Amino acid sequence: MSKETSVTACCLIIGNEVLSGRTKDANLGWLAERLTDMGIRMAEARVIPDDEEIIINVINEVRVKYSYVFTTGGIGPTHDDITSLCVAKAFGVEIYRNPEAKALLESFIPVERLNEARLKMADIPVGSTLIGNPVSKAPGFKMENVYVMAGVPSIMRSMFKGFSGELIGGKKMLSIAVACYLPEGSIAEPLTKIQNLYSNVEIGSYPFFRSGNFGCTLISRGTDMEELEQVAEKIREMIISLDGDPINEDLVTPVDGDTEKDY
Amino acid sequence: MSKETSVTACCLIIGNEVLSGRTKDANLGWLAERLTDMGIRMAEARVIPDDEEIIINVINEVRVKYSYVFTTGGIGPTHDDITSLCVAKAFGVEIYRNPEAKALLESFIPVERLNEARLKMADIPVGSTLIGNPVSKAPGFKMENVYVMAGVPSIMRSMFKGFSGELIGGKKMLSIAVACYLPEGSIAEPLTKIQNLYSNVEIGSYPFFRSGNFGCTLISRGTDMEELEQVAEKIREMIISLDGDPINEDLVTPVDGDTEKDY
Repeated sequence: MSKETSVTACCLIIGNEVLSGRTKDANLGWLAERLTDMGIRMAEARVIPDDEEIIINVINEVRVKYSYVFTTGGIGPTHDDITSLCVAKAFGVEIYRNPEAKALLESFIPVERLNEARLKMADIPVGSTLIGNPVSKAPGFKMENVYVMAGVPSIMRSMFKGFSGELIGGKKMLSIAVACYLPEGSIAEPLTKIQNLYSNVEIGSYPFFRSGNFGCTLISRGTDMEELEQVAEKIREMIISLDGDPINEDLVTPVDGDTEKDY
Repeated sequence: MSKETSVTACCLIIGNEVLSGRTKDANLGWLAERLTDMGIRMAEARVIPDDEEIIINVINEVRVKYSYVFTTGGIGPTHDDITSLCVAKAFGVEIYRNPEAKALLESFIPVERLNEARLKMADIPVGSTLIGNPVSKAPGFKMENVYVMAGVPSIMRSMFKGFSGELIGGKKMLSIAVACYLPEGSIAEPLTKIQNLYSNVEIGSYPFFRSGNFGCTLISRGTDMEELEQVAEKIREMIISLDGDPINEDLVTPVDGDTEKDY
């Protein structure tokens, strides 16, 4: 990771169901792309269980280490939804029933169905502010630099889009990708030489296996586009010198789930 | 998580490309399912960057905390592949060129292409044993309780299948899933009462939004199938008492990428 992007984030995926493999996380990759686009470097992500002690300890560890912490999961109405309580305990504050959150639930849920379990979704830590939920109203919340969101991907995404305008990113990380059907082992040595010439650029090599052929995508990342273009040109020259064809991959938009292809 | 499954694991997904969002991890969910099936509880997973200090520190933190550690990524031939070296440093041992690993590479790669970068893939920590790679030969390795695998999903899976027979699991975690088209908020209170009756069973509630309807899947997990059946029956009775229809989900096999549906 280039040292130039000093605004950092940690994502915490909270939920036994992800650790058991029953639910496949779809939030991490989505958040990673958005944060990168905003000049925020995701420095770490963790998947942790619905365990009070663990959630509290991890939140207290990462909230002082990174600029932002984003959590997903555990803010629903059932007994295994303990994230809000844990965030309050991590900050040493009480949980209270937020009137604005309660009004939001009342506007969405008929009064005869607004039981105590559903009202629990209006309980947030003292000192936190609400995060809107356009999908099903029950809000998330922000406590200092910790953003607490739902685990259901459609809801998490709508919450993030709502507050992302207030996040302050660093210099935006730019990238140029050049692919080729040469195996990594053939380009490793000349690529190291190029890397050694440009300390401000981080060159990553990502092998793939497509339609029966080994190849790799070489991605140059940094904050100075002019320098990145120099590096990409050197990479293209290197590929040609090894009898390969450089393929410009900038027009390929990565999509969720497009994983095997990316390797 | 039920406390009965005492054999634990931590998965480390190593790679800047996952944290930047360019590559979507496909290894965590696959490993989680396999480990659960073997009676090994994945207690934590982390995505960390290709950073020597971080990799060393995290490996040393988790290898004493959990029964098994599984890493993916960073064992290829390029300059950004530093996992093997970091594992050696974490254990305080040297890296050496393993003759068996070198022979494997020689059997697969023509001699004129077997350059120093490719040979680097035969360098493993002193005291480690090889993990076979049926796809592209370059091996992973096992150092005490740390299993070091490739990041490319097809290779990681073939490596895991090769050694998984030697892993010793605890009591196998069993589960029964019952779904319904009732929103979580309606079942939360009676579900808590059921949970409170069965301390050896962990009941999880996983909300979903399918074809325009809110619902949830209620999963009972534990090691005693007879007790799980009692709990599932109580959950079905609860759903019926709320004018819902219990849906047996045991025949639904979760597939990779089937994420939104699971919520």
